[in-house]
Amino acid sequence: MAKVKKQPRPKAETPKGFRDYFGAEVTQRTEMLRQIAEVYHLYGFDALETSAVETVEALGKFLPDVDRPNEGVFAWQEADEDDKGDWLALRYDMTAPLARVYAQHRNDLPTPYRRYAMGPVWRNEKPGPGRFRQFYQCDADTVGTASMAADAEICALLADTLEAVGIARGDYVVRINNRKVLNGVLETAGVSDESQAADVLRTIDKFDKVGESGVRELLGKGRLDASGAYIDGVGLGDDQAAPVLAFLTAKGADNGETLDRLSAAVGGSAMGAEGVDELRQIADLLSAQGYGPDRIVIDPSVVRGLGYYTGPVYEAELTFDILDEKGRKRQFGSVAGGGRYDGLVKRFTGQDVPATGVSIGVDRLLAALREKGRISATAQGPVVVTVMDRARMADYQAMVAELRQAGIRAEVYLGNPKNFGNQLKYADRRNSPVAVIAGGDEFDAGKVQIKDLILGAQIAENATLEEWKERPSQFEMPRAELVAKVRAILDGQG
Amino acid sequence: MAKVKKQPRPKAETPKGFRDYFGAEVTQRTEMLRQIAEVYHLYGFDALETSAVETVEALGKFLPDVDRPNEGVFAWQEADEDDKGDWLALRYDMTAPLARVYAQHRNDLPTPYRRYAMGPVWRNEKPGPGRFRQFYQCDADTVGTASMAADAEICALLADTLEAVGIARGDYVVRINNRKVLNGVLETAGVSDESQAADVLRTIDKFDKVGESGVRELLGKGRLDASGAYIDGVGLGDDQAAPVLAFLTAKGADNGETLDRLSAAVGGSAMGAEGVDELRQIADLLSAQGYGPDRIVIDPSVVRGLGYYTGPVYEAELTFDILDEKGRKRQFGSVAGGGRYDGLVKRFTGQDVPATGVSIGVDRLLAALREKGRISATAQGPVVVTVMDRARMADYQAMVAELRQAGIRAEVYLGNPKNFGNQLKYADRRNSPVAVIAGGDEFDAGKVQIKDLILGAQIAENATLEEWKERPSQFEMPRAELVAKVRAILDGQG
Repeated sequence: MAKVKKQPRPKAETPKGFRDYFGAEVTQRTEMLRQIAEVYHLYGFDALETSAVETVEALGKFLPDVDRPNEGVFAWQEADEDDKGDWLALRYDMTAPLARVYAQHRNDLPTPYRRYAMGPVWRNEKPGPGRFRQFYQCDADTVGTASMAADAEICALLADTLEAVGIARGDYVVRINNRKVLNGVLETAGVSDESQAADVLRTIDKFDKVGESGVRELLGKGRLDASGAYIDGVGLGDDQAAPVLAFLTAKGADNGETLDRLSAAVGGSAMGAEGVDELRQIADLLSAQGYGPDRIVIDPSVVRGLGYYTGPVYEAELTFDILDEKGRKRQFGSVAGGGRYDGLVKRFTGQDVPATGVSIGVDRLLAALREKGRISATAQGPVVVTVMDRARMADYQAMVAELRQAGIRAEVYLGNPKNFGNQLKYADRRNSPVAVIAGGDEFDAGKVQIKDLILGAQIAENATLEEWKERPSQFEMPRAELVAKVRAILDGQG
Repeated sequence: MAKVKKQPRPKAETPKGFRDYFGAEVTQRTEMLRQIAEVYHLYGFDALETSAVETVEALGKFLPDVDRPNEGVFAWQEADEDDKGDWLALRYDMTAPLARVYAQHRNDLPTPYRRYAMGPVWRNEKPGPGRFRQFYQCDADTVGTASMAADAEICALLADTLEAVGIARGDYVVRINNRKVLNGVLETAGVSDESQAADVLRTIDKFDKVGESGVRELLGKGRLDASGAYIDGVGLGDDQAAPVLAFLTAKGADNGETLDRLSAAVGGSAMGAEGVDELRQIADLLSAQGYGPDRIVIDPSVVRGLGYYTGPVYEAELTFDILDEKGRKRQFGSVAGGGRYDGLVKRFTGQDVPATGVSIGVDRLLAALREKGRISATAQGPVVVTVMDRARMADYQAMVAELRQAGIRAEVYLGNPKNFGNQLKYADRRNSPVAVIAGGDEFDAGKVQIKDLILGAQIAENATLEEWKERPSQFEMPRAELVAKVRAILDGQG
């Protein structure tokens, strides 16, 4: 026999940029997806689940983020004798697969087709802190209608969904803008060159950082930034920059005023007027349904997505403050975005198919609820039935079976029972509310001991001796009262 | 400008072996996963979600199926300047990632660690009819205990889970076997060569097909099969084959008899006696908890998985008949399998970590429930509010908003409203129970019309004229009664 070379042990690590999710992290996300699906379903959207893998050809290159147009996918070639197998890739969003599905099944699907999809997507990009290469998206799209009622519906759906998952009214706002208005403004400004238009887009995206005067400089000759570096400008004349600035700062006291200012900003552009009219239709429909500007508002400073979408663009932002890693207050920011896009299905069929939709970043939304303390990062563990006498395993199993039948999460300690301290340490690590203890004496007497671990932890932390005496955290009771007593402790009436 | 070469249109197709899931297919699976997670959780198992992507190194090659040990994964190399990037792959099951997670986080995880995981897995194998390269698994495993109580618990969990998703008691059976018993039998038979042992395993796997006499021939010199081809045998002598056949046919009238026969079959093998003792412990624990042989039974003919696992092996089988594609009755067969394995974590840490667990094939279980008619393949669609007057879109939206607030799934028709027939066709395609109709006349009169599409379909199918007159499927009512009336129709009291 040949000498077997010793293989080095594999590293127990996730690939870079991936992570594991444990316990409450998983169940809370599942619960949030369920809540979101419930609202989507109520609105008439149908579930669609495509596989994680698509052909690279079908996927195309449609990433919405303007700054990273060449962002990568995870791709590989199918094994094949001639090395001519298809290239396959993991989906990078839910929209590209939707376009493929609609093109493939359009004769069997209703038109308009309202669908929702939720699941992980993958981006082959450099990971960073809090930035992972697999994350969840939760999309609702309507394919096959150009009606602004579809866009208004998506905005209402988005507001309702945020409230359904626990974001209170007032803690979020859905902001709407329109690509056609921007196009009208560019037309009026005389910016017809595509690359110059892209430069303008990139510049107005800096509005939040550099303010109106900064954007004015960057649209013109350029600007000395805080570090002392000179940033070249787009090179527009003052009269060209004026409508762009008017567009950016058009937000008025109410939607009516904003629309009037946008009308002025687009000047004589028909495209621009169409965009303003679309925004007016959406605002009217929403206001008729009671969605006022406290929930959904026209806001021309929404730029993210303007480069990708073809009509209305929407973004949901959480407006409450959180503390960043340095303890400074900041707004949580965007948790969902979407808009109208027309070209996706055309790639396959040659026909324009209007579509509009939204994508909710579920992981960000969960992070927001956790940072606000609305959901706890750890969940209560099961009741742990400890093992004093290994030969009585069936009796212990009977106890957990009874508890489970009463809907109480419970388990028997299955490790080595020799060291009883380890069993209590285990219960502690499991975040168990109650440990059940029974040895030969208790079985003989038809009794069982219960240790209230919630109370025990409280006592250990800050109770006085008096309190401890008054309410011991461990006590004995008849075996027959086990379920009732555990239930009482879990209900806080222990 | 260079002439742009016209790109051919991409094909709107899933990659070979992948498919899309629509509407009820998705929501029913989600609901089943929720039901399963509820039972797993009640038993004290904690959720774990790893990413779809692992390093090839961490994943290793541990596919449980003996017949296809080289079954492939979808893998690719990370982009890297030196072409030395890690090889990554999609997970092919949930167990390999569990081993990696336990090795990586063992100091932070409780021991024993009970975890459940649900999600898609990917296999790079030749697709066939009903055989896809992405499918769902739903696993529960206990890592870090050698106690047979853990195996008994998994079997009880499996039975409870099948009942929770709608498989009635009597329609399934969990069958248990043990690899150590087989090893003991092989020892007693004097089969020590590994490749000969594998041949024996392959042979006894044919027991269902060729019966006892067929296995006897195949263990010996060989056998002429139905097609006239001669199949070479393993070459055991009659005395060697005897314990193997005794093992295979050991199933008695009850677990006690089966265990006695197995005891005899393993002869003097200590390993075999250990296996029989393990089975006895499991059977005793289960019987003490009331899991009788109507639900969980020791069955030495369970062979699938014996080659992979190291101790107890379990398999859940649905026992009801279904009709196959040719209309012949057959049993539905296996929907879950599992067992005890010890080597997985050792790959990473060098230490033996005992583990046991089960994997439920959710897609097969769904298929079984559909074939039995326990769940319907199509779900009811939303109430469709049609559009007679495009200018009243806000009024139609108000109607659906009211319906939704009452928890009724509803939507406005968002296609081109010109052709009213198309709107009813759309409602039909959506499988809508009710269409709501209101034009200028109705709005002026404060009325609305309702079309009962469930009743309409029934009438169209088989009603007499009398019945039609008695209960028209379309009627008018005050606008204020819309929600109550729709609710009544949905509740079947229209």
